[in-house]
Amino acid sequence: MPATPTKYLLDESRLPRAWYNIQADLPQPLPPVLHPGTMQPITADDLAPLFPMSIIEQEVTTAREVEIPEPVREVFRLWRPAPLFRAHRLEKALGTPARIFYKYEGVSPAGSHKPNSAIPQAWFNAQAGVKRLTTETGAGQWGTSLALAGQTFGLDVTIFQVRVSYDQKPYRRAVMETYGARCVASPSAETEYGRRVLAERPDHPGSLGIAISEAVEMAARRDDTKYALGSVLNHVLLHQTIIGLEAMEQMQMADAWPDVVVGCTGGGSNFAGLAFPFIGHGLRGGSRPRVLAVEPAACPSLTRGKYAYDFGDTAHLTPLTKMHTLGSTFTPPGFHAGGLRYHGMAPLVSHVKELGLLDAVAYTQGECFAAGVQFARAEGIVPAPEANHAVKGAIEEALRCKREGRAETILFCLSGHGHFDMAAYQAYFAGQLKDEKYDEGELAQALSGLPAVTG
Amino acid sequence: MPATPTKYLLDESRLPRAWYNIQADLPQPLPPVLHPGTMQPITADDLAPLFPMSIIEQEVTTAREVEIPEPVREVFRLWRPAPLFRAHRLEKALGTPARIFYKYEGVSPAGSHKPNSAIPQAWFNAQAGVKRLTTETGAGQWGTSLALAGQTFGLDVTIFQVRVSYDQKPYRRAVMETYGARCVASPSAETEYGRRVLAERPDHPGSLGIAISEAVEMAARRDDTKYALGSVLNHVLLHQTIIGLEAMEQMQMADAWPDVVVGCTGGGSNFAGLAFPFIGHGLRGGSRPRVLAVEPAACPSLTRGKYAYDFGDTAHLTPLTKMHTLGSTFTPPGFHAGGLRYHGMAPLVSHVKELGLLDAVAYTQGECFAAGVQFARAEGIVPAPEANHAVKGAIEEALRCKREGRAETILFCLSGHGHFDMAAYQAYFAGQLKDEKYDEGELAQALSGLPAVTG
Repeated sequence: MPATPTKYLLDESRLPRAWYNIQADLPQPLPPVLHPGTMQPITADDLAPLFPMSIIEQEVTTAREVEIPEPVREVFRLWRPAPLFRAHRLEKALGTPARIFYKYEGVSPAGSHKPNSAIPQAWFNAQAGVKRLTTETGAGQWGTSLALAGQTFGLDVTIFQVRVSYDQKPYRRAVMETYGARCVASPSAETEYGRRVLAERPDHPGSLGIAISEAVEMAARRDDTKYALGSVLNHVLLHQTIIGLEAMEQMQMADAWPDVVVGCTGGGSNFAGLAFPFIGHGLRGGSRPRVLAVEPAACPSLTRGKYAYDFGDTAHLTPLTKMHTLGSTFTPPGFHAGGLRYHGMAPLVSHVKELGLLDAVAYTQGECFAAGVQFARAEGIVPAPEANHAVKGAIEEALRCKREGRAETILFCLSGHGHFDMAAYQAYFAGQLKDEKYDEGELAQALSGLPAVTG
Repeated sequence: MPATPTKYLLDESRLPRAWYNIQADLPQPLPPVLHPGTMQPITADDLAPLFPMSIIEQEVTTAREVEIPEPVREVFRLWRPAPLFRAHRLEKALGTPARIFYKYEGVSPAGSHKPNSAIPQAWFNAQAGVKRLTTETGAGQWGTSLALAGQTFGLDVTIFQVRVSYDQKPYRRAVMETYGARCVASPSAETEYGRRVLAERPDHPGSLGIAISEAVEMAARRDDTKYALGSVLNHVLLHQTIIGLEAMEQMQMADAWPDVVVGCTGGGSNFAGLAFPFIGHGLRGGSRPRVLAVEPAACPSLTRGKYAYDFGDTAHLTPLTKMHTLGSTFTPPGFHAGGLRYHGMAPLVSHVKELGLLDAVAYTQGECFAAGVQFARAEGIVPAPEANHAVKGAIEEALRCKREGRAETILFCLSGHGHFDMAAYQAYFAGQLKDEKYDEGELAQALSGLPAVTG
């Protein structure tokens, strides 16, 4: 019988009223974003073809707080504040003296944390008179979320879905269509860049980088159309801090504070969303937890990438940012955590790592599925393959606590449920899950091809 | 901006401590259950090969309250109390003066209301020393839930899954296996009855009735093995009343009370779970809402069946109960709401209908998917195909209110999410969804073959 509750719920009156911007508390500013033509710092006007001015302001602001508009909070109430759970049963299964908490973002209608940014992005675009949004999606979680957000605020949505996910996860498309969006397998014939890629390799499995290029190209072509990105950019990470802001309140309800904060990283948004408010609290003199980013061994930007200026997309249409990158021409193998298949890491997460404020570790997908199954059998929730990386990281920390006899408090982000991803679990149980390895030669080549910028 | 909240959450300290038994408040007792051999009322001993005595007691008790054991409440805390939502956005989309509330059971780890009974059934069996549970599953929701429950309390679980669902929903099986259960497509070669059915028709699509026969046969054969049923029986409906008990508290939080309560009916468990506490409140002198059961036009036991004694399974191994039935030999067409494909209705629901305490209506699956898509676009949540029937019923009531200019309060049970069922939505969008019609001749034949009992 637990002496303490299983879950900590916040009333919707306690939904945060402002997002937290870690830039206000960092000891050094983020390196500037460079224009792909001039290699000089970009201006707001340079970004205007892709984003409305309100979003560009959020991208560059260094203010500590950014107000969440009331209509956005109204939609958030459909699932937020999200619950914080104490993993009593997992602790018992592991025999650890550690206390394990997880913030569960799978309660959103899309089943993941992604609507936290999709809803405000759609709202700011609608306010600016935009009629259509384009985007890319890997696992389908971001596309689902933007489809939902577009439906909510009356915007058309066109989604370029990485072909390997489009083929592996047909049901994701049905969700996006249920929300009224249009899905296109990428590379596609709908853009100049997509046609070029297909001409070279008609069976190209696609990548987030290519899908981004296609979505950006289509948005830049039309005046009433803007682009929405599901991770990586500052404003996306800003929106996701609602995760950590709620979790801080809930940890206080639990009369606890994390010694370790764990998240999975692809582009970095759910990780930053949970971790940044805690890191900022530490930077302002509060107690600072150890922060651990867990990434896939098959796409290890933080642990194997270079911290350098690089493009966000494969076609080199986007500005350059300084980040941990595997090279924009790197094509990650088609492993099952599609949401973590991106060559770069969010510039803010990369910068925070360079400042020594976080650690990173990489695990193979087989190890992560094993952790996910152990979690599901203890806690009941089947995690998304992406979230399995955070579960693996948290379990390893709990086992370390067991070895060291330390009753630490571990907090991790369970960023989504796996109900759309059961084909991957099927493959895991059938022993068909390969630990996909990238090609070392391809990685070396992609890294050697990084643009020459003195940052 | 809503003047009232979007959702009503109960703290886990307010999780109900006892289930509600409507038998205590009914003006006439439930007709007795008959032994299939003697046609005389069965005794507890007759049921002992299939169920532990603690469950048999719950099946027959007429006490108003049955205590929920503390270890069961502890597991419930993983997702209960479940939220009650006010459907602000759906109301607006419909332009109705009605207030629409829905109790959302999709927050459970299995994505539906089914764990509400699976968890206590597994616990009572484990307490009785049982080692293995058998069951059947249609859509996979019950099987998933019993797999979770077995894992939680250390019981082996064997699940006979109706073949048409086994084929249409392969990912459901992966969830059951993630929870450590074993799935068998039914009809199967593992039971005598299954082999007999396959001999007659090797491509038989299966039915809940056949799968029940197989699960019962396997349980009866072994001493350490018992059987668990996901709907229909009194104790299952009893367990589900936690839905309505929570909803009553939440309606009070909302300072509202339903004029109409709506639920979808297959075996009747989520419907009874929501409706019985409200009906009982009315029978004890409180205000009594109109209660509406919504069933599929392809398997309309309440609206087209006969109120008569019938077997619960196809092989006629089970006792006979008086219920609305299409005949135990009736094979419903393979429409997508697999959870509603059962020839009979729960005896308690049937009895309550005969007492004039509820109305029933049937809709085709096309109408129900259209309602589900409208709901998803307004409220964000994609309902399970079963739940779409309740959504359709609630929308029709809201439109009636609009026509009549009445600001009634409508409460319905959204029994599960549709994330496992996107293939059905795909078929709907592709225009491939037939409005499956049963064969009138087959129905007439099944009804004429009802056992001759003077009940």
